[in-house]
Amino acid sequence: MASSSSTITLLTDFGLQDHFVAAMKGVMLGVNPELKFVDISHLIPPHDVFSGAFTLTQACFYYPPGTIHLAVVDPGVGTARKALALSAGGHFFVAPDNGLLTSVMDSQESWTAYEITADHYYLKPLSATFHGRDIFAPIAAWVSRGIPLEQLGPVLKKPVRLEIPQLKKVQDALIQGCILSVDRFGNLITNLKPQDVPHFTKILAGKQEINSIHETYEEAKEGEIFIIPGSTGYLEIAVKNGSAAALLSLKTGAPVGVILA
Amino acid sequence: MASSSSTITLLTDFGLQDHFVAAMKGVMLGVNPELKFVDISHLIPPHDVFSGAFTLTQACFYYPPGTIHLAVVDPGVGTARKALALSAGGHFFVAPDNGLLTSVMDSQESWTAYEITADHYYLKPLSATFHGRDIFAPIAAWVSRGIPLEQLGPVLKKPVRLEIPQLKKVQDALIQGCILSVDRFGNLITNLKPQDVPHFTKILAGKQEINSIHETYEEAKEGEIFIIPGSTGYLEIAVKNGSAAALLSLKTGAPVGVILA
Amino acid sequence: MASSSSTITLLTDFGLQDHFVAAMKGVMLGVNPELKFVDISHLIPPHDVFSGAFTLTQACFYYPPGTIHLAVVDPGVGTARKALALSAGGHFFVAPDNGLLTSVMDSQESWTAYEITADHYYLKPLSATFHGRDIFAPIAAWVSRGIPLEQLGPVLKKPVRLEIPQLKKVQDALIQGCILSVDRFGNLITNLKPQDVPHFTKILAGKQEINSIHETYEEAKEGEIFIIPGSTGYLEIAVKNGSAAALLSLKTGAPVGVILA
Repeated sequence: MASSSSTITLLTDFGLQDHFVAAMKGVMLGVNPELKFVDISHLIPPHDVFSGAFTLTQACFYYPPGTIHLAVVDPGVGTARKALALSAGGHFFVAPDNGLLTSVMDSQESWTAYEITADHYYLKPLSATFHGRDIFAPIAAWVSRGIPLEQLGPVLKKPVRLEIPQLKKVQDALIQGCILSVDRFGNLITNLKPQDVPHFTKILAGKQEINSIHETYEEAKEGEIFIIPGSTGYLEIAVKNGSAAALLSLKTGAPVGVILA
Repeated sequence: MASSSSTITLLTDFGLQDHFVAAMKGVMLGVNPELKFVDISHLIPPHDVFSGAFTLTQACFYYPPGTIHLAVVDPGVGTARKALALSAGGHFFVAPDNGLLTSVMDSQESWTAYEITADHYYLKPLSATFHGRDIFAPIAAWVSRGIPLEQLGPVLKKPVRLEIPQLKKVQDALIQGCILSVDRFGNLITNLKPQDVPHFTKILAGKQEINSIHETYEEAKEGEIFIIPGSTGYLEIAVKNGSAAALLSLKTGAPVGVILA
Repeated sequence: MASSSSTITLLTDFGLQDHFVAAMKGVMLGVNPELKFVDISHLIPPHDVFSGAFTLTQACFYYPPGTIHLAVVDPGVGTARKALALSAGGHFFVAPDNGLLTSVMDSQESWTAYEITADHYYLKPLSATFHGRDIFAPIAAWVSRGIPLEQLGPVLKKPVRLEIPQLKKVQDALIQGCILSVDRFGNLITNLKPQDVPHFTKILAGKQEINSIHETYEEAKEGEIFIIPGSTGYLEIAVKNGSAAALLSLKTGAPVGVILA
């Protein structure tokens, strides 16, 4: 498994104000001057591996096979947590082994993971607090030059996985789900796929019972709270020209109940 | 009219935290791996078509002819609003037909618009809520590969236009204008061009009469409120080392009065 | 000294909402369509030349030699302040002559500076308020096409320099330093290099005495305030899973005391 892609996507929690992301890109251009970068997001909430995993998976597979995805949300930097290179669905991933690639692995029938140990590729001296620059960036850039993942270290059979919230049957006609993510518009993205709850009648969220279901925003009335099948593949709770997150005072992780017919 | 440009600029209200913009870029690289992207802004206030139109027009014509500009501020996504491809001034534009290209059209002597109906280029399955990813991105990428706009659909004679605020003569020596935009520094950009009000003596804005006029920031005193011909081509209201928007409590759309000599 | 690099990095205080940065990139692509851009930061606090200098220096030398760095934090735009082109460490810099390149110069054994006077490269008409677009962008793009810096204007012997805070010996065993920068995570980056205070016992910052020193975040306890050698080359004050800046109510410029053994 070798890539010689010229595109590396980046996802981090490093923000857009500091030098962090630019230092990483500089290191990579030093290894491979032909690289093109596409930023997925650098505004993942600090240390929020779960949120990083969600955002990465919503974007990465729209890229052509061979693309390299560099993801660094790394609260355990400098500790014994491993560094991970993964091949999945024809894509390549470089990330800390802390669950950030959970949804990527879950979304593919098969994948192969390697523990990165090839420290001759690292930037020296190695800092204890910025492996994005010193380990992950140079590794991603060397992968882009065609180094096969096998040469980065041994196969890793069981990468760390996040516990992804599953639907729970609470009563015969009541299923419990949760909010996976809140987007810029205040839409609440649940973990409910339309095909998993085909005959639901309403959703309980915060103190609201929501039984209005629309296929497009247009169908809703101004200010109405409603459920809509989102572009993410999940049911979303939305407010026409408003923020469902603000109106319902809900955020990521909040439970929702689904009443079946 | 065909482009084979390798540069696509992007302007949206999708923000920088979520996966939206990165998903669009992934789709485009899948169609044309040679593409380079330049972000104009993704921080257009949500659903603010007027603000998107202003920002797009201030940036797009600095690019070389042949550049493709992809603009998505799309409160009517999923509704009957049309999708638009436009050729103007040697540039190409792909956007919802909701007025977002009003200032682009107004700035050029001639243009040709097409309604996008060539749905074999769309991403399938087509979502009802994210046409940026499913329609506009692939169309822009195919335009970059040289598909002529004529092949995207029929000519559209009357694209939707925003009502752009015009100057109004209130009295013989009093003209009413407005604030078009507020920039990061708190400068208030009016819709007054210096040549339209050549002999004005002062501007009334909020509760202030402003009669100080400078050609550079240097000429002003610390904290002074003054009028300056801006880099946008419009008169701007500024405060030396401060925010005119904050000091005058004014925002986009607020009226200003101009007293002529 | 001529570059024919295809990469230009950008650092400004122009923000990410307005058209400013995109207009600059358009102008540059008009001069050199082969250019690739990498953003270092556009969220330097408005007019904060010191902060811009710090962020630029933390990123720029990770790029390959020949890279062109375009930096515009320019409170004196339109005044008599000069425009600067600098060659240092094999890199090229284009910036206002207001101290923004101080740390770049300080970090290199030698450099050569030129005052930009070659106004035939400028965008016309020249605005008085946006030299980023009208002077610095086209100059950087022409440098990328191989114009030697010597052709931009005369050698500038003494570019403007910021006063960079130095360590002060207050008593035999007490040194005074300061906070150079606060990063997204709330870490306080001091101007203390580990080699300058090899045997310190504690740091006084705000109302706290900090005597806990760790090499990695992992060693610290939840909520603990501690000192860590940062990836910037300076000692940093951090809080495990928290913000030292918030906890200590400190910001850039605040003094810190160091007690030596």
